[in-house]
Amino acid sequence: MPPNRNLVYVFDVAGADPALLDHEPSVRHAVDRVLDASGLTRVAEASHRFEPQGFSLAVVLAESHLAVHTWPEDGTAYLTLTTCRAPASDAFEDETAALLTDLLAATAVTVRRLV
Amino acid sequence: MPPNRNLVYVFDVAGADPALLDHEPSVRHAVDRVLDASGLTRVAEASHRFEPQGFSLAVVLAESHLAVHTWPEDGTAYLTLTTCRAPASDAFEDETAALLTDLLAATAVTVRRLV
Repeated sequence: MPPNRNLVYVFDVAGADPALLDHEPSVRHAVDRVLDASGLTRVAEASHRFEPQGFSLAVVLAESHLAVHTWPEDGTAYLTLTTCRAPASDAFEDETAALLTDLLAATAVTVRRLV
Repeated sequence: MPPNRNLVYVFDVAGADPALLDHEPSVRHAVDRVLDASGLTRVAEASHRFEPQGFSLAVVLAESHLAVHTWPEDGTAYLTLTTCRAPASDAFEDETAALLTDLLAATAVTVRRLV
């Protein structure tokens, strides 16, 4: 695929534990697990805590970027990965959805993809 | 729309000037212009220069995030905006494509959208 023919994955998280979504270390831990599982390489990051609640984190990767945004007041969040190469594992979508469901105590994680 | 029903726009840039794509101030200027034109609010950012060339920038916004990645060796780049609200202007896609074409001396900017 041409270098700018990136893939975009969006994981929409619903019914998650508001306390976890507003707890920066918990959200960071979920991101770490997703990066570890997918074999992606972090090179820089930026984050912001919103008042009175909510957290956003953007991670620049060697393979493009990942970001997560949380809305504790609604029990929702999403994680998006944009990458210039396909994930190493065909199970990437399922594994990431399972990790987010588990680590954010979510009732549903749906995946959208732009290719 | 529910808070996690975010919109994703990807602007694929081709035929751009390699010198501009590898010049961090030029890429940042393009991002600034896109943010100004779209009325989005920057709250944090992270960037990385790749060796021997290439630059990535991720910007956390009050409205989610924007990122840009460049491949000077190919004359390509892409800019992606993920936002939890629709852009203020219906002309957002056309205006952003025109800005990127102009500021990066590109021959083509195509838009993909995930809703």
